[in-house]
Amino acid sequence: MSDVFVIAQGGGPTAVINQTVAGATIEIRRRFPRAKVLGARYGVRGVRKGDYIDLSALSDADLRRFGNTPNSGLGSTRDKPDNKYCADVIDQLRKAEARAFIYIGGNDTAGTMQILDAAGANIAFVHAPKTVDNDLCENDHTPGFISAAWFVASAFLSLDLDFRAMPGIYLAVVMGRHAGFLTASGAAWRRNESDGPHLVYVPERGFSMERFIADVAQIRERYGRCIIAMSEGVQTEDGRPFLETIRETLERDAHGNVVLSGGDLGVAIQGALAQAFPKVRVRVDTFGYLPRAFPGMASEVDGREAFDVGTFAATTCLEGTCSVGQQHDGERTVLRRVPLAAVAGRTRLMPGGFLSSNENQVSAEGMAYLARLVPEAPDYPPSFL
Amino acid sequence: MSDVFVIAQGGGPTAVINQTVAGATIEIRRRFPRAKVLGARYGVRGVRKGDYIDLSALSDADLRRFGNTPNSGLGSTRDKPDNKYCADVIDQLRKAEARAFIYIGGNDTAGTMQILDAAGANIAFVHAPKTVDNDLCENDHTPGFISAAWFVASAFLSLDLDFRAMPGIYLAVVMGRHAGFLTASGAAWRRNESDGPHLVYVPERGFSMERFIADVAQIRERYGRCIIAMSEGVQTEDGRPFLETIRETLERDAHGNVVLSGGDLGVAIQGALAQAFPKVRVRVDTFGYLPRAFPGMASEVDGREAFDVGTFAATTCLEGTCSVGQQHDGERTVLRRVPLAAVAGRTRLMPGGFLSSNENQVSAEGMAYLARLVPEAPDYPPSFL
Repeated sequence: MSDVFVIAQGGGPTAVINQTVAGATIEIRRRFPRAKVLGARYGVRGVRKGDYIDLSALSDADLRRFGNTPNSGLGSTRDKPDNKYCADVIDQLRKAEARAFIYIGGNDTAGTMQILDAAGANIAFVHAPKTVDNDLCENDHTPGFISAAWFVASAFLSLDLDFRAMPGIYLAVVMGRHAGFLTASGAAWRRNESDGPHLVYVPERGFSMERFIADVAQIRERYGRCIIAMSEGVQTEDGRPFLETIRETLERDAHGNVVLSGGDLGVAIQGALAQAFPKVRVRVDTFGYLPRAFPGMASEVDGREAFDVGTFAATTCLEGTCSVGQQHDGERTVLRRVPLAAVAGRTRLMPGGFLSSNENQVSAEGMAYLARLVPEAPDYPPSFL
Repeated sequence: MSDVFVIAQGGGPTAVINQTVAGATIEIRRRFPRAKVLGARYGVRGVRKGDYIDLSALSDADLRRFGNTPNSGLGSTRDKPDNKYCADVIDQLRKAEARAFIYIGGNDTAGTMQILDAAGANIAFVHAPKTVDNDLCENDHTPGFISAAWFVASAFLSLDLDFRAMPGIYLAVVMGRHAGFLTASGAAWRRNESDGPHLVYVPERGFSMERFIADVAQIRERYGRCIIAMSEGVQTEDGRPFLETIRETLERDAHGNVVLSGGDLGVAIQGALAQAFPKVRVRVDTFGYLPRAFPGMASEVDGREAFDVGTFAATTCLEGTCSVGQQHDGERTVLRRVPLAAVAGRTRLMPGGFLSSNENQVSAEGMAYLARLVPEAPDYPPSFL
């Protein structure tokens, strides 16, 4: 067996995705002191070109330093290999005499690994999870989610204080195409009924503009202000992206996903709110890419877990192809081998029980999940307002 | 002389505006142990109603704890008093036997103080500066700016790393109606020509869509990606808000300011970029309210300076009406009494020398100013990309 291992990063970045690279590289070297660990630049695209960084040339200290940087430090891609692309990638992995290919990413990345594995080669294809969307099956939570959720919780705390000081209506559009975890995490630090966000709209529950306006009116009447968290992938009752109803043309990326723009949704909602609540202070912002890899906001737990996922991937690749599931045994986070097919192309939605049945709000069950993950709220004194 | 002092907060929040309340209250009590310090709720609106919190009932420790919270903890307002409102406020201040009224805010708040002072009353009207826009005359920089600039610098570092990993065009719309300081602070951590933001558009320099598209094309050719910082108040060559050219109706707030929405600007720019660069990854976000009072992102220096402004206001109010100017003597920040008229209703624009003459970028002079204020960049290792 050769001692060559290839690592790459796919899809969107997180605050801790480089920890997984560091964890895997350090563990491979611990097991195989003469191993070559090649970091492909720009994901599978770099593998196809043989465009590598020799990670095994770095000291453990430099790898840990790299691990502590946010965003995909090796570069990333959303390329979905077709047959020819796939054959090129396998040729290159064979040429490099790679024993295993560890690809860190979401469900699209797992799908790419499934295609490569199906092509057959004496190479272990290990998918290591990451995504701020937290939407991978076989995972309790995914590396990257905790840090992004921390940002979103912080943002909503700030905006709730902002609108306590000067009343009005505030809505922020949060990333999330199908799963509402990140949007819901805006509510993680609510202590009282009067704390914002007062309304949480996620793709898992049908959205109607009429009910939305009525909800906002009711909250304003009760608290004098209304803070709203809304997923950019919020859907109509019949399961169509709400944006489809307000945009005539929709771009699609290589994976066939609708390219959503939170900005478009924000402007449509701002218009509807301004019309329904004339002369009221209305502000709609789009957090966009900010939550996913903000400097200084990598949670310690998230970073350690992402590192451990790398360590586990480096160990388990010796047993062949799989995806790594970051699960929870009721007490702690545990890592398990899971089949690629259980993760690839599938989406874990937020469990129905995470939302209150009678209002657009996170339920006690959802709050307990968030409390277990999201770092503690800052200890502010009670408000004068 | 009575020992009653009234304090209030006006306009938008900052991460450190409560430090000024804490500083003033602690200093007043140090000088006058039996003084009553009344915090008006919701700015001048609370004064008009006699709606106060007794800040002198709090311990120094509780005041410091309050100082360490972001956003306007006493509540705020954008009310601009007319003659009747003004008379009511003065009646209330007289009724409370107030010796001084300290109002923390921007140039609109200073304007309110000028109106109140002109009405004549044996009360000292002291305006204490704060604004994330950094646009007050007679100030080197305003309390609140450093923290907001820190957020914006962090955000652009993150987004530059994001687009290094997966190339494309990214633009963020940043608050700033007339002054580009906050937008320019996105460039504070640039080290090399290739670091984003590659283009910086501020209200101080005329904007044309044609030149903008050409600029973006040039940068993309050079670096394979283009990161752009744009003020929401960006203006056409003839000095009209660019948004006016894309919106038929514009709301105006009580001070006659155009109510800008970064979302509208963002969507217009996104459309123009998508048209000019088909099939290129284009993303436009609006930071909106996020930079101004983000939990955990109050800079230590900013917090200390805002506290000192409060201390100074408490001292100088004994000498009568004025505004407090946070100036710089070439070595350190110094506080001086300045006339209300020098601040009220005026806007300090970014000095012309802060921008490069031949490109949309912060000049060496501008970078030196930002380096003096914005906290240091995180110490990341060199990029592999």
